[in-house]
Amino acid sequence: MPLTVNSNTAVANLDPLEVETLVYVRRKGPLTRSQLVDLLGHSLSKITQIINALMERGMLESVEVGESTGGRRPGLVNLTPHFGYVVGVYSGSTSADICVADFQGHIIESRQQALHLRRDKPEVIMESLFDHVAALLDKHNIPRDKVLAIGIGVPAPVEKDTGAILSPANMLGWENFSVIDYARSHFPQARVRLENDANLMAMGELRAGMGRDHQNFLFVKVGTGIGCGIVINGEIYRGTHGYPGHIAHVSIDPKGPVCHCGNVGCLERFASGPAIAEQAMQAARAGQSPILLELMTERGGVLLPEDVSTAVGRGDKVANNIIIDAGHIIGKMLAALVSFMNPSLVVVGGGVSRIGPQFLISIHRTILEYCLPLSTKDLIVHKSEIEHRAGMEGAVALALDHIFITD
Amino acid sequence: MPLTVNSNTAVANLDPLEVETLVYVRRKGPLTRSQLVDLLGHSLSKITQIINALMERGMLESVEVGESTGGRRPGLVNLTPHFGYVVGVYSGSTSADICVADFQGHIIESRQQALHLRRDKPEVIMESLFDHVAALLDKHNIPRDKVLAIGIGVPAPVEKDTGAILSPANMLGWENFSVIDYARSHFPQARVRLENDANLMAMGELRAGMGRDHQNFLFVKVGTGIGCGIVINGEIYRGTHGYPGHIAHVSIDPKGPVCHCGNVGCLERFASGPAIAEQAMQAARAGQSPILLELMTERGGVLLPEDVSTAVGRGDKVANNIIIDAGHIIGKMLAALVSFMNPSLVVVGGGVSRIGPQFLISIHRTILEYCLPLSTKDLIVHKSEIEHRAGMEGAVALALDHIFITD
Repeated sequence: MPLTVNSNTAVANLDPLEVETLVYVRRKGPLTRSQLVDLLGHSLSKITQIINALMERGMLESVEVGESTGGRRPGLVNLTPHFGYVVGVYSGSTSADICVADFQGHIIESRQQALHLRRDKPEVIMESLFDHVAALLDKHNIPRDKVLAIGIGVPAPVEKDTGAILSPANMLGWENFSVIDYARSHFPQARVRLENDANLMAMGELRAGMGRDHQNFLFVKVGTGIGCGIVINGEIYRGTHGYPGHIAHVSIDPKGPVCHCGNVGCLERFASGPAIAEQAMQAARAGQSPILLELMTERGGVLLPEDVSTAVGRGDKVANNIIIDAGHIIGKMLAALVSFMNPSLVVVGGGVSRIGPQFLISIHRTILEYCLPLSTKDLIVHKSEIEHRAGMEGAVALALDHIFITD
Repeated sequence: MPLTVNSNTAVANLDPLEVETLVYVRRKGPLTRSQLVDLLGHSLSKITQIINALMERGMLESVEVGESTGGRRPGLVNLTPHFGYVVGVYSGSTSADICVADFQGHIIESRQQALHLRRDKPEVIMESLFDHVAALLDKHNIPRDKVLAIGIGVPAPVEKDTGAILSPANMLGWENFSVIDYARSHFPQARVRLENDANLMAMGELRAGMGRDHQNFLFVKVGTGIGCGIVINGEIYRGTHGYPGHIAHVSIDPKGPVCHCGNVGCLERFASGPAIAEQAMQAARAGQSPILLELMTERGGVLLPEDVSTAVGRGDKVANNIIIDAGHIIGKMLAALVSFMNPSLVVVGGGVSRIGPQFLISIHRTILEYCLPLSTKDLIVHKSEIEHRAGMEGAVALALDHIFITD
């Protein structure tokens, strides 16, 4: 148990079969006793005994769901929503989402806060995030010792075994700051987990989004950076050290611009939010698009990715092509990954995924163009349906997963 | 059990715990009783009871290994080598390996046969392969009903659920031929499994090669075609439909030559054995290399990939650069896959991997150049140590895996 400690007596001394029961109910619940008999492979009397023990501890409760269709409904069990709570924090480079969720994983309330991950000190950022956590808990009268776990996502590689933030191009100054220690100083009884943002969003899709029905899928986040979360056999794939999905700094053009990572022609330099804005500014300066120039003047000499979307709305062809080209570049990378991994789903999320429908269509078309039909048979390519909630849902799922599991 | 039938009474009516015991002994054996207690999580008396039952059936035996170091050695159990046998067949485009192995997976004898997978009819090829199988069995006095399973590898995608050969660019005419039915007509009592060649070679590396100590690795086969087997969490990864690792037909140059698959600028057109030979022939015709021209004249107007190696041995710089460039192109593709998957090992195999040391060095250098250091930390890039045996070892492992498992 190198990363976290859960000293909360409410969840102490569970036996492995009780933990397994809780995990199944959380992921598939509510469930009948006979469904649990099938899932766990134990006798009804054993399952009943486990359920009774967990009900006595207040972790499970009987529920009735749906409409009665005549005859007596079989008794269902589910997690007791208010047995305990988890906190989810999902930070991008320029904003963070903070939420509190109940024991079933339902988000009770969330808040969003602007921040500057590259500019501000870790202590300052963490303090403002945890002020929101405290405010949310107070508002809903949740005592601090009822917070059983905290899941946190950051836009940087996180080492699997230590929870350390590594090579933080977006997170300068965080290499020697322990997010886990900070969180535990506020919630000593809670288990704390840190995860890379794209992995966390993939987990959100797996538990609460389009990924629920898929065993092998990719989640591509296109925002300030580009990242990829990988789900294999229904679990987040963490690779050897914890940072697979590192596609942002794959060189796609050996004659391309130098990247802040030191490499040349990285994907991120062509198709991220800042790259799209930069291309739009170049077009404006070159006199190719009066609409982009007007928007840039309004903003005092700069453009944001959303301005490119605005320009398309006003009929600007140059802006439209910038988005289509960015989609094509992401699509080419994804074609290689789809050929390699043979997934059944690619979910596209992150801020840039909302820049306009042509972005996703361009990605999808390029995947179909560059892959053999065999690899794209039955493949779904879709925008995230839970959009900006993916990170928070993932943070909540990460926290809930680690309430009981000691690894 | 859609693919195979095992009607052999020798392995019928095993209970799940007996199967689990056999699988552990096969993968990790020989083992002591107390090691099996730890692995299976059952009491010593239960384990002893299982072992005794399996010994009575002749599947397990007591063994003594290594030198005595004084005190009494704990009793080890292992699979009884001659309880039963498996057949492994691994076919490339131009040659096939055929072998017979014992119940422990040791290859008793193997044979190699040249063939023309694109030219000759499936029935003719299968008949000549199974003639070798019959000869090997006869030579070692192995009765046919002692063959418990057959593993077969082919250089084409194999559908996970049906065992059908799909989109067989290398295997025209095989789409409507059932390899499984053919094998079962000769060995009705055996379970038969078909697998893609790169997956099979990856399995060989996992069980008998460099992959034994790795949880997540890639096996890249560079030969007539290019393929990639993927091991994740210690198991072969089969994707949604059974054909991941499809990197041969990823387009790396939209202005490149048209490929036989219909796509443009495929990896296989730049770095496979035939592509290397083609580049050498072009250089010879263009008068860039007298050595290559001389070799081409000797062969009557063509060059084979191994001739490029011969030319390098005679000091030819053009041939040397062709190999280095092919390695660079494979390395760029692998850099993306390493960034994506964060494996701990990349094994390079297939005929072209033996073309010269500069091929692997060029691949390795390019991976290090194009990946972030984070992704290549502790990464091993190595030539296969079991070389052409990888396919056969994989075929044997595939067969042994499926003696008991009914999926």
